[in-house]
Amino acid sequence: MATLSKENLSPAAFIGVRGDDIISFGSGEPDLPPPKEVYKILPHYKDFKYGVIQGLDYLRDALTRQYPDSSADSFVITNGASEALDMTLRVICNYEMSQSKKVLMTKPYYYSYPRLVEFAGMEPVFIKTNLGRIDMDDFREKVTDCRAVLINSPSNPTGRVEAISTLKEIETLTSDLGVFVLSDEVYKDLIYVRENYLIQGPHVVTINSFSKTYAMCGFRVGYLWSLDKRLVQDVIAMKTHTSMNTNILGQEMAFEATKVPRKFIDDQLNIWQERRDLLYTGLKDAGLELWNPEGAFYMLPKINNAADFVWDMFTKYNVITYLGDWFGAEGRVRFSYALDTEKIEDGVNRINEYLAKRWK
Amino acid sequence: MATLSKENLSPAAFIGVRGDDIISFGSGEPDLPPPKEVYKILPHYKDFKYGVIQGLDYLRDALTRQYPDSSADSFVITNGASEALDMTLRVICNYEMSQSKKVLMTKPYYYSYPRLVEFAGMEPVFIKTNLGRIDMDDFREKVTDCRAVLINSPSNPTGRVEAISTLKEIETLTSDLGVFVLSDEVYKDLIYVRENYLIQGPHVVTINSFSKTYAMCGFRVGYLWSLDKRLVQDVIAMKTHTSMNTNILGQEMAFEATKVPRKFIDDQLNIWQERRDLLYTGLKDAGLELWNPEGAFYMLPKINNAADFVWDMFTKYNVITYLGDWFGAEGRVRFSYALDTEKIEDGVNRINEYLAKRWK
Repeated sequence: MATLSKENLSPAAFIGVRGDDIISFGSGEPDLPPPKEVYKILPHYKDFKYGVIQGLDYLRDALTRQYPDSSADSFVITNGASEALDMTLRVICNYEMSQSKKVLMTKPYYYSYPRLVEFAGMEPVFIKTNLGRIDMDDFREKVTDCRAVLINSPSNPTGRVEAISTLKEIETLTSDLGVFVLSDEVYKDLIYVRENYLIQGPHVVTINSFSKTYAMCGFRVGYLWSLDKRLVQDVIAMKTHTSMNTNILGQEMAFEATKVPRKFIDDQLNIWQERRDLLYTGLKDAGLELWNPEGAFYMLPKINNAADFVWDMFTKYNVITYLGDWFGAEGRVRFSYALDTEKIEDGVNRINEYLAKRWK
Repeated sequence: MATLSKENLSPAAFIGVRGDDIISFGSGEPDLPPPKEVYKILPHYKDFKYGVIQGLDYLRDALTRQYPDSSADSFVITNGASEALDMTLRVICNYEMSQSKKVLMTKPYYYSYPRLVEFAGMEPVFIKTNLGRIDMDDFREKVTDCRAVLINSPSNPTGRVEAISTLKEIETLTSDLGVFVLSDEVYKDLIYVRENYLIQGPHVVTINSFSKTYAMCGFRVGYLWSLDKRLVQDVIAMKTHTSMNTNILGQEMAFEATKVPRKFIDDQLNIWQERRDLLYTGLKDAGLELWNPEGAFYMLPKINNAADFVWDMFTKYNVITYLGDWFGAEGRVRFSYALDTEKIEDGVNRINEYLAKRWK
């Protein structure tokens, strides 16, 4: 691993940086383990052959229960939500369409989005946000020239959940225009204020994974769901060559996760909410300006000289935070609260200590 | 799964087609299980977090033993050799280079190669072959205008191993021209005639996997190795967004495989060689024209009306074979001999029965 410096910091650079005294508000992954059931199948597992490219049939069957009017044919199991997004963008880029090769997304955005759009040969275009939520005036204007829009509610890094009226208007506008919607709903089970609203439509591609709901990040099992049969077939045709089946054992573990009682998710949500309340109060009491997030597990306070804050907190206080710039959120810092309440309190204390010195 | 028809047959369409009376010379995957050691770690496995994007450090350390003058930094662990190829091609396509965006490969080729090159935004160009081996006159002429060459020795689908003098000349020519070499050596441990010759050079990217040597196809653990530090970094930067770490458990299982005594590979090789001899004799005695392969586990006999042969053998005789056209080998049929000797004999009998009727 390269030596970390103020200039080469990034989310990827922090992966694997662990230590007893390090408090990490960095990584966007659950710290609590997956349901124990997902490990149950391991002791007697013996398979080794290629799997069906589209994904295990019974895993796709199990997913139909979460998606109305769906069939197993409308899912593709992928190497995490990342690969689902990447392949969908690559497939869409190759379509003959009247729209330009622009993909609309909010700013702030999940840090991979602009890169994935560019890797696929398209151009990211940004929607203004008001306190982290989509500015619909801006959306209406920009969507007309776009080939696809990328929606992420609940959002990483804002923690915002879009209003149902917003999501419904997006459904109508994009359907009328024939614009693809890539709806990244990986935080759909981590909403504190209401049930998830599933965006639907003829050209909607829902992206999801087992990473956040079931704490299975390392196993890289995600999927896409779409009623656009051509797109599903084209993604399978691409995956046949670019990575073949998703790890067969990861898929079996994901299948076990689909059988876990809803109580697991509810219990997790309670834990997340307690942490959210603690960190929100802590950061607010520290004098930072921020909104109280409705979903996912991130906060995005304003912080002056944010790059100094991130570097100093890491090097002098052993506290990892992510620079807002990485997510298109200049002047802000992203906090993940995927850590226990004791550590959150300790981290907030260190931040207060630093800020007190800074403001002296 | 779509209903199979003569028109929609493909290697992917055959995945999962199994049955007691079906004899498959189709799929390119070992039928014998991985070393038992790779399952040993499963009962007590409990990890779940994201891994380092580049791959487990001790897995990369273990791989350095197979590659002279390598360090763990020069490897990236990927979702099979497929993803390693895909990412390398995408990265290379984006480079500012004087060469056109052409990628040279033999014809016949592994069926994913032309698609991967096209998906990456480049153009496949084909080298003539003589009885399955590279025609160096043609190579010398075409390489001058290419950005990369794709070498696959031992080859799928020809089973050919290129002469060491050929590989050395390719090293020199490409090094002089500054052309990338993507050397897909996934069959490096399945050579009947000599040790593998590892192609080397400043712009060589070696592609490999645990799929063929250790029968771990379904787990999708591959890797690339290169002395081109910029390319390695660019691949990691891409993977950070397109799929993140390769399945953490698959990587642990691959690490266990690196500790398995060499005897496992030698024993496998003896089994492959026995099958090769049996199928070669069988197909030759059936009157088919073919060469005796030196590596991998494929044969590529000439067969008149090859599409009829593949369809009839499948629908009337329950024998799966792959049409040469899928691999750029018109007028030929690919046989994989990844099945036990009893089935090979049974399959050859069915082929004789069919050919006897056809020739009547």
